[in-house]
Amino acid sequence: MIGELPDITVGQTFPSRRALHDAGVHRPLQAGICGTKQTGAESIVVSGGYKDDEDYGAVIIYTGHGGRDPETQKQVAEQSLTDPGNAALVTSYLEGFPVRVVRGAQSRSPYAPAEGYRYDGLFNVSSFGSKMGVDGFRVWQFRLEAKNQAEKIADSNREDNSPTSAEDLSPRDLVATQRVVRNTGVARQVKTWHLDQCQVCGTRLVVPGGTYSEAAHIQALGAPHNGADIVGNILCLCPNCHVLFDAGAIYLRDDLVVMAGETEVGPLRLDSRHQIRLECVRSHRARWRR
Amino acid sequence: MIGELPDITVGQTFPSRRALHDAGVHRPLQAGICGTKQTGAESIVVSGGYKDDEDYGAVIIYTGHGGRDPETQKQVAEQSLTDPGNAALVTSYLEGFPVRVVRGAQSRSPYAPAEGYRYDGLFNVSSFGSKMGVDGFRVWQFRLEAKNQAEKIADSNREDNSPTSAEDLSPRDLVATQRVVRNTGVARQVKTWHLDQCQVCGTRLVVPGGTYSEAAHIQALGAPHNGADIVGNILCLCPNCHVLFDAGAIYLRDDLVVMAGETEVGPLRLDSRHQIRLECVRSHRARWRR
Repeated sequence: MIGELPDITVGQTFPSRRALHDAGVHRPLQAGICGTKQTGAESIVVSGGYKDDEDYGAVIIYTGHGGRDPETQKQVAEQSLTDPGNAALVTSYLEGFPVRVVRGAQSRSPYAPAEGYRYDGLFNVSSFGSKMGVDGFRVWQFRLEAKNQAEKIADSNREDNSPTSAEDLSPRDLVATQRVVRNTGVARQVKTWHLDQCQVCGTRLVVPGGTYSEAAHIQALGAPHNGADIVGNILCLCPNCHVLFDAGAIYLRDDLVVMAGETEVGPLRLDSRHQIRLECVRSHRARWRR
Repeated sequence: MIGELPDITVGQTFPSRRALHDAGVHRPLQAGICGTKQTGAESIVVSGGYKDDEDYGAVIIYTGHGGRDPETQKQVAEQSLTDPGNAALVTSYLEGFPVRVVRGAQSRSPYAPAEGYRYDGLFNVSSFGSKMGVDGFRVWQFRLEAKNQAEKIADSNREDNSPTSAEDLSPRDLVATQRVVRNTGVARQVKTWHLDQCQVCGTRLVVPGGTYSEAAHIQALGAPHNGADIVGNILCLCPNCHVLFDAGAIYLRDDLVVMAGETEVGPLRLDSRHQIRLECVRSHRARWRR
């Protein structure tokens, strides 16, 4: 299960991996990453197994899975994005899914609990990439950011007084958020039906470890449009066509031909499982005087 | 000036439009929107002049400027996105710029102050569109959302007990944020130099009222990449190429040819004012094993 669990609170501690498993917080007994490429990563454990991990409290640089000798804990081979755990974190990045983060006492982190394991809330994967690890083999690393300010670990938990903090890492002159793309459960369904191919232009963005598309609500959510979050009100679009559709540069006719102004762009790509509601199409069109 | 003002606090009240002007909170003495297409909207006043306005506290449906008879306050003509105030709000939407919101006592809103004007904090323009107004002429409307939860007006401020609240308008099953595009001051500079044309594929997204592009940091901001927010570390990209670049599907050679895996995509589009730093290009490439 992705996200918060009903009976688990942020900061709750567990004596062992078995206890984490039993509570459903982190199900595998050994692996640091729980999840698959298809579902995304449910949870990770930061337990100090990887020397390249960095922990700044609200920001964690988490090393992917694989290539480590279980005896010596050293990297002895390159890591790969096809490893199921790493692939799960790529999906979490692409889909914006939150990941439960657990810290273990064995971690070198100043944010580690004194003993056992502590559930430290939901984090987002904000970027990833590879680097040459300290042991001379390439590792993949995922930047995780605490989803809510409230979930940031208090600075007093830290055992040293070095100036490294999440604030140092967040540029202060980020003045504006230009665009936020939200992902809902039904949105994921529509994107899966279309295999991330844009219903308008046919683009399918292929990146290392996955594919990317966005769910566009035809009749926008919230006032004054008050569209519903149902598959019939959602299109699978590439980010470019999403911008154009949300700002009225393209729209749909009742026969599901895509229009740009008075020009026919072409038929919308359809899938028989995905029935589009005409009243939503008409509402979007009316918003743009069409 | 866009954003918060140094000496003004959220909730601060002003006796008159002149006082708002003198404090720099909302500079025009008559117009409801302060701003231009180029700069975006600095501030708006919600003062009840437009019958189609809706105020839910943390969400405001704000009617654009124009088409109103100053005597009767009735709409007597269609509104246009080329009106400078409306164009300013479209720029705020496209760029994600925050808008200062002032409520006036004359407003029909349950969130209006008892007298004078009150500065109610920063809002984002989350969508816009047109509809047939109550007076029978088309109006443009902008959905404004309070930027910070803390800036939401306390529900106790409301004068009636109807169940309409921002929560009713925000679908509860928005489970994930898939993608957040942040805009910095230098980012805006780079996008302006390139007139919103993608430096990789040449796409320029044209929408009613403006054009859209995104600033991509070559060497990502924050740990572990620690890129700088400077023009030499920024590309002007369309959203699709931005996704590809951030996830390593495309990268740059030292000669600034765009590569996809081992394939040459073509030369990066350049502008003599925009000098790209090679060390940033190399850092991005190393992250993707290139």
